[in-house]
Amino acid sequence: MLICADLRGIDSHGVARLHSYYELLEEGRINPSPRIKLVRSTASTATVDGDNGLGLVVGPHANRIAMDLADKSGTGWVSVCNTNHFGIAGYYVLKALERDMIGWAMTNSTKLVTPLWGAESMLGTNPIAIAFPGKHEPPIVIDMATSAVALGKIEMALRKGAAIPSGWATDRDGSITTNPADVFSGGTLLPLGSDRERGGHKGYCLGMMVDILSAVLSGANWGPFTVPFAIRNEIPTRSVGKGIGHFFGAMRIDAFIDADEFKTQVDEYIHVFRATRPAPGTNGPLIPGDPERHAEAERREKGVPLVAAVVEDLLDISKKTGIPLSVN
Amino acid sequence: MLICADLRGIDSHGVARLHSYYELLEEGRINPSPRIKLVRSTASTATVDGDNGLGLVVGPHANRIAMDLADKSGTGWVSVCNTNHFGIAGYYVLKALERDMIGWAMTNSTKLVTPLWGAESMLGTNPIAIAFPGKHEPPIVIDMATSAVALGKIEMALRKGAAIPSGWATDRDGSITTNPADVFSGGTLLPLGSDRERGGHKGYCLGMMVDILSAVLSGANWGPFTVPFAIRNEIPTRSVGKGIGHFFGAMRIDAFIDADEFKTQVDEYIHVFRATRPAPGTNGPLIPGDPERHAEAERREKGVPLVAAVVEDLLDISKKTGIPLSVN
Repeated sequence: MLICADLRGIDSHGVARLHSYYELLEEGRINPSPRIKLVRSTASTATVDGDNGLGLVVGPHANRIAMDLADKSGTGWVSVCNTNHFGIAGYYVLKALERDMIGWAMTNSTKLVTPLWGAESMLGTNPIAIAFPGKHEPPIVIDMATSAVALGKIEMALRKGAAIPSGWATDRDGSITTNPADVFSGGTLLPLGSDRERGGHKGYCLGMMVDILSAVLSGANWGPFTVPFAIRNEIPTRSVGKGIGHFFGAMRIDAFIDADEFKTQVDEYIHVFRATRPAPGTNGPLIPGDPERHAEAERREKGVPLVAAVVEDLLDISKKTGIPLSVN
Repeated sequence: MLICADLRGIDSHGVARLHSYYELLEEGRINPSPRIKLVRSTASTATVDGDNGLGLVVGPHANRIAMDLADKSGTGWVSVCNTNHFGIAGYYVLKALERDMIGWAMTNSTKLVTPLWGAESMLGTNPIAIAFPGKHEPPIVIDMATSAVALGKIEMALRKGAAIPSGWATDRDGSITTNPADVFSGGTLLPLGSDRERGGHKGYCLGMMVDILSAVLSGANWGPFTVPFAIRNEIPTRSVGKGIGHFFGAMRIDAFIDADEFKTQVDEYIHVFRATRPAPGTNGPLIPGDPERHAEAERREKGVPLVAAVVEDLLDISKKTGIPLSVN
């Protein structure tokens, strides 16, 4: 799953994360052999307890349950508690495509984002993914955080010594800032939409929606009480549930419409949107999933470039575990 | 349903729209007595053909099917074609709350919004609504367009002769504009997130998601081919389906978790988010649904203020139909 992220150009969620997972397992904060339990279910739903396993293990299991439910009942919806960071949301919806289904994936995550008009982090970047298959065209794959930007972009600006655009983040007092360092000294990320004028309340709504479906509905920790992903982050002093939460959905296309007819229309949809008149200085709109697909085409051929620090992390894990690693 | 919108302060979707519905019915563009048909169904899904009825008639019918499916199978999901403008999305999710369900409602609509990097309208303002019940607290009700702002705000700026913020709209060439008049001479609304830097691709993704779930999945017109709401708007020369499309979902809370436990947590969720430290110059974050609830409390007491033009429209309908109208 990490390699899938790397191939798709989402370096922040690729093997660069392996050392954090390793540390959490090593310290006993994540259960290496979880017994994943079905807590409750109906014809089209299930609630899953991940037994504090790796999200990379619990997530695919729960996603499979959603798809199996859809096989029988048209759709399947699974809310998951007692789990951990699950990788890229896009991975799960790609799996659904393999079974002619529209897949949904969401997760809550470590607090980083302020509600509109707030001055402290209360929500994670809480992503939403959904994918629709084409017939001859590649699928439409949406995978987006509900914050204006990812933390990684602010880290990059900090490293370069560059200012960040107004609308990405606040300082510790809750004022919008253009100094990336402010975010790392008590500041927050802003929700999609940034401020009241541009619809920052909408990004906040979406982040809250993901949080409730993933965590309140499953009995996991929500909002500011989410368990942090990395060992260096402080653990919240209060717990309101078990682990973090995910939410998966799977919809059989032929439960609504002939699958071939749907895919043919999606092809036409893509053609029509690609033909949109371009805005000045652009090549026109992309189709969701284009950037990741282009990254994958290139990286499958040329390989995935890794920064030195990541290679060192991998070598460190290799040394400590005795699992051989060949680096060219 | 129109009065529900007016009470909640959403004047643009209240009785102000009645004259447009009347004209469309009068001209035979909408079927006044539709035979709504179930086209396809499974244990948790249905596809509905609205027989070109009013969205205000077809929508509640399809929403009820979603809730009835949820009664039996845990969740219900209904995609609707051959329908028309359905009022406020929030109405439908409030109905689900009455049955202890989490309701979802989406619809596509007349093209107004450009994809990021486009220079022409390809999507409607395609709203998403979802609601979660509290126990003693009022429900969390999300109801949001996927554009940065509603067209109404730009109309208001135009009337006042005021500039609009950068990030709301483009001119006819696809350049971001601060002149509201540009929007009405070939310009477009921008998706939530506004530009590439602030995540405009995400609002575009959400608008496309709503469009596909509502219209491609049901066999309705999508994207630039949506049938216009008002008579003055041009009808697209090409048709790719029947009418416009809606998408409804209903999730029984007890299909996932004890309903009382869920509502108690939602109460606590609301308390925690209300206690967020406020940003400077604000009273702190709102809970989604607060503004509409406050409007409703005031308007239930003092009545709904109507502008003169709307009163004249209502009197005109009254005169033409012979349905008596008493205006104080």
